[in-house]
Amino acid sequence: MKQRTRIILAMDETDKEKAIRITELLKDEIDAVKINWPLILSSGPEMINKLSKITDVICDLKVADIPNTARLIVENAVARGACAVIVHAFTGEDSLKAAVEAADGKAEIYAVTEMSHPGGMTFTAKHAEEMAELGIRCDVSGFIAPATRPERIKVIRKMIGTKKILSPGVGAQGGKASEAIKAGADHVIVGRSVYDSEDPLSAIREIQKDIRSVL
Amino acid sequence: MKQRTRIILAMDETDKEKAIRITELLKDEIDAVKINWPLILSSGPEMINKLSKITDVICDLKVADIPNTARLIVENAVARGACAVIVHAFTGEDSLKAAVEAADGKAEIYAVTEMSHPGGMTFTAKHAEEMAELGIRCDVSGFIAPATRPERIKVIRKMIGTKKILSPGVGAQGGKASEAIKAGADHVIVGRSVYDSEDPLSAIREIQKDIRSVL
Repeated sequence: MKQRTRIILAMDETDKEKAIRITELLKDEIDAVKINWPLILSSGPEMINKLSKITDVICDLKVADIPNTARLIVENAVARGACAVIVHAFTGEDSLKAAVEAADGKAEIYAVTEMSHPGGMTFTAKHAEEMAELGIRCDVSGFIAPATRPERIKVIRKMIGTKKILSPGVGAQGGKASEAIKAGADHVIVGRSVYDSEDPLSAIREIQKDIRSVL
Repeated sequence: MKQRTRIILAMDETDKEKAIRITELLKDEIDAVKINWPLILSSGPEMINKLSKITDVICDLKVADIPNTARLIVENAVARGACAVIVHAFTGEDSLKAAVEAADGKAEIYAVTEMSHPGGMTFTAKHAEEMAELGIRCDVSGFIAPATRPERIKVIRKMIGTKKILSPGVGAQGGKASEAIKAGADHVIVGRSVYDSEDPLSAIREIQKDIRSVL
């Protein structure tokens, strides 16, 4: 995934036509589109192939299974054209390693350290540093760290050297793009505040402006 | 899900025809078939609908996302006919509650406490009791606890009253059905050792015999 605008669009939509239309509209304003299971369940796994023809696709599958299942999920997503897959680290070293091996250098694997929603504090936040260390051992490409808690991005940033940080929670969840970038994120992830906007182009350009203010 | 043979068949297959054929063959020997993401990625989400016409289908989606995404995943699976969905508890109370509310009494939600593979020891096993308590608060139907560690099933059993335990890891992963049932499991989950057997019917009847020996 190239670093141009530093923005990843989270297409948390289940409407196939809208997902394709908004991705087409914003493809020059974003570094990648991120999709997840609800879109695959509503529109079929072929959506990975279709969107990959428009822009880079990050499959945010939050893979959280035993090694063999993790391997099968990643292999399928990569074969369909995904440039990256997001995987949980809390399932342990064997599962995370299986995901990295399945990507086989053809796609990036990002590991979740802690989650951006309130429930993410209960278990994931307690082990974020251990999970970052695990991700480094498993040679992931980078990590997911919440824009809603920039101080946590800083902690992870210090641990992971040149590995990348993708930061969700910008916009509707309350995180600010510039704060996440200042704290050490390489890309911010924005969703509803853009794709549900009456004017998605203006909405994303506002975020670009906010990001440029700290670069 | 009825309790007849106490066996759930984990159809960890990506071959659509084989998945349908083996489910047809074994439908009278099992309580339900359990499918996961690799089959949905290879064969489309319609597999949930198709298999639901043959027997009860548990969607082992290991849902591990923010509340809104968890809700969308569960709603789709239930609308397609799933009788149960398996969800991680480590994402916290809001996500687990969203899954239970999305099932809306039309399907069961099972929460993972600890995972059966070696990596499951690193993070999930440390919080298994807390996750069981969380599941009770969120009113899940039951829990997933590993047949590979019957002593852990006993611990969870004592905590959860009449809620159910589904126990994976029987067969290829080394767990024994009768040991899991004795420890307090309501259903055991068997996979490769049955569907990859040259004679799946005989293989499952051996497991039935093993279970009956402790009932």
